[in-house]
Amino acid sequence: MSEAIAKQAHLASTTLKTLSDKERSLALYKIKEGLEAAKDEILAANRKDMELAEANHLSSSLIKRLDLSKNGKYDSMCEGVLDVSNLEDPLNKITLQTELDDGLTLTRLTCPVGVLLIIFESRPEVIANITALAIKSGNAAILKGGKESLNTFQAMANVINSTLDTETKVPKNAIQLVSTRGEVGDLLNQDRYIDLVIPRGSNELVRNIKENTKIPVLGHADGICSIYVDKDADLEKAKRILVDSKTNYPAGCNAVESVLVHQQLVDNGSCHEILAAFKDAGVTLHLSQELYKEDKDTVLATETDFSKEFLSLDVAVKTVQSVEEAISHINSHSSKHTDCIVTENKTVADKFLAGIDSAGVYWNCSTRFADGFRYGFGTEVGISTNKIHARGPVGLEGLVCYYYQLRGNGHVAADYKGAGGTQVFKHKRLI
Amino acid sequence: MSEAIAKQAHLASTTLKTLSDKERSLALYKIKEGLEAAKDEILAANRKDMELAEANHLSSSLIKRLDLSKNGKYDSMCEGVLDVSNLEDPLNKITLQTELDDGLTLTRLTCPVGVLLIIFESRPEVIANITALAIKSGNAAILKGGKESLNTFQAMANVINSTLDTETKVPKNAIQLVSTRGEVGDLLNQDRYIDLVIPRGSNELVRNIKENTKIPVLGHADGICSIYVDKDADLEKAKRILVDSKTNYPAGCNAVESVLVHQQLVDNGSCHEILAAFKDAGVTLHLSQELYKEDKDTVLATETDFSKEFLSLDVAVKTVQSVEEAISHINSHSSKHTDCIVTENKTVADKFLAGIDSAGVYWNCSTRFADGFRYGFGTEVGISTNKIHARGPVGLEGLVCYYYQLRGNGHVAADYKGAGGTQVFKHKRLI
Repeated sequence: MSEAIAKQAHLASTTLKTLSDKERSLALYKIKEGLEAAKDEILAANRKDMELAEANHLSSSLIKRLDLSKNGKYDSMCEGVLDVSNLEDPLNKITLQTELDDGLTLTRLTCPVGVLLIIFESRPEVIANITALAIKSGNAAILKGGKESLNTFQAMANVINSTLDTETKVPKNAIQLVSTRGEVGDLLNQDRYIDLVIPRGSNELVRNIKENTKIPVLGHADGICSIYVDKDADLEKAKRILVDSKTNYPAGCNAVESVLVHQQLVDNGSCHEILAAFKDAGVTLHLSQELYKEDKDTVLATETDFSKEFLSLDVAVKTVQSVEEAISHINSHSSKHTDCIVTENKTVADKFLAGIDSAGVYWNCSTRFADGFRYGFGTEVGISTNKIHARGPVGLEGLVCYYYQLRGNGHVAADYKGAGGTQVFKHKRLI
Repeated sequence: MSEAIAKQAHLASTTLKTLSDKERSLALYKIKEGLEAAKDEILAANRKDMELAEANHLSSSLIKRLDLSKNGKYDSMCEGVLDVSNLEDPLNKITLQTELDDGLTLTRLTCPVGVLLIIFESRPEVIANITALAIKSGNAAILKGGKESLNTFQAMANVINSTLDTETKVPKNAIQLVSTRGEVGDLLNQDRYIDLVIPRGSNELVRNIKENTKIPVLGHADGICSIYVDKDADLEKAKRILVDSKTNYPAGCNAVESVLVHQQLVDNGSCHEILAAFKDAGVTLHLSQELYKEDKDTVLATETDFSKEFLSLDVAVKTVQSVEEAISHINSHSSKHTDCIVTENKTVADKFLAGIDSAGVYWNCSTRFADGFRYGFGTEVGISTNKIHARGPVGLEGLVCYYYQLRGNGHVAADYKGAGGTQVFKHKRLI
């Protein structure tokens, strides 16, 4: 069953990769029209999910997330598909061209990765968003969304599949929905057909997937972001950035979890102001031994607090003696997501920017900017803390790779030096 | 022990990534000098490996590969280090720059992957080559070479480490040699510190590594390359390309293993000439049922022969009815390494170039060109059949990734639309 799904996706991907940008973008336009036309039936399925969620006493914040009917969410979901179709084509871009010899030209072009397996949360609009990103980038996708939105997902997948089938050149199997965790487990074994797994969701989900597949996994388990407040920091900027990074959306993976304060700021009283700003914003401070004083909203930090994703209004704070100590602490404790320095000293900032080993390294701005929309990618399929392929917010460019074309005229290796002949390569760079 | 090695490598990588191109290149120059100065002692170690190999009755071709003393191999190994140091710096290239808003600028720069674990064969000169690639690209590397060259590797690693330690800014732990398979097994668990595994060697070795690690693996298990001879092929070109692709170096991963011939070439006798050319070159033909006639140097192909890496003077041949059938066969049987079409028809060639899902797709030239040196990369660390990060011959560019710098002036997310505020991003593309 899972093998059949994966094989079908692979087959669809080999057709999809040959379609023009116009054909892929037109398919998205048709999907947008299809979703608009099926609004009533999809919202009816959505109501079913909401009723089930209420019957199961799920949290009100989850129920609110499930609801597609309010605040123009449905229409902006449809517009989102169109937004992606209008993005620049990420495929067939020439990134290198070299004349190896007369009449023998090497060209490197961007191409889709192939087949994506995307596991995501219960937000119903995400299926439209991911479908758009996959088709625009020429990738087939197998989708598994959170079970709380299953009825909505199925109604939307039906519309997407029948639209693709009847009105576009994209094979309908380019987008397939699976509905159980068991199917995902089996799909993780299909490394012959599936090229990339993108899990969005809990730390535990992502770890579990990484443990159970040979397929490359793109994403992040933890978002442990740090901010280092240097001795040359502007105190007002520091307070603004720290409070925003912690409180703007504490459950976000780009929220700050650890703060390192230069010792001089303790000595001159600035650190006290920083801690007060946090407390005023309702943040519980986990303070290391040297900062700790018994006080409300303050706890003594444990060593593990500095490798912890709180996802709440909690933050761990400690002192460091230098930017070097801050860099070394962050490189050994952070999850390589996004880390920031607050300082007015450009030399120190440059040292931090070059020394930190994370997908995003910031100077004097909130870690909350780590987001595909804010970066200008239109949207994102997730945020990667991997060290290869794609790092940080992953938009269309993260869903492509490249291949080499070599065009000759009967050229053979044996004519060249090193393979038996005497001819020498020209290696003339064209692009 | 393995954890200590991996941790040391990680620590070294955080320093190495901050060094300038000049500092990294100078380190390579010093290594070259060190290797030249230690020629006698390294060749003495090399003689020990050769004597052991002879005592163990290893094959003469292996013993020949072990020998560093002949044909100027030692000097060209040293020159090779210098060649890499003279390549263009792959780091800190700006690949994107966007003004998100006034004073808030996003920059994407290339950076090292981090820590590489490279497992390679018994060719002693490879350690110099890989050391050069790693340092030039700012990556720390843990190296494990074939055990037959162990004495040579150890002598060379000693020179490299002491040169790094005393004469360069590169930390000596940036290059570490391990000597047993057991150590490699343990290192494969160090996914916290090691970012990429690059195995070079047998199919079995690569598969075994992929099964036993969560660290991304870059490389290829199989090189199953195919050539499709179209009905509009130039027969002379076809014969030249086929014979070169098969016989120039049959043990190479870029040698052709499967040949698909258009039915019309059987009907007009061209296929017969192609098969004769193969036979003249000493190739054993594994012919599918429709081509098979009992004959010397000819066997009836089994179905698995079309998914097989012979690595010998054997080739599987079958007929197809169209370029579409050829594409579909290759996409489901090849190992996504390098595949080629021979035709004079540009429309058909373009269809093939766009439709094949492999790292290299060739038109009218030998598959043997799939090689980092031939592509003009100076050298290669291996050839990748992965679908993400790097495909085909992997040179310096395949050893880098990227990160984002964001430079602001106290900017916070809460001021912007979507995060609580009213401000709109400018997203002005600068680069």
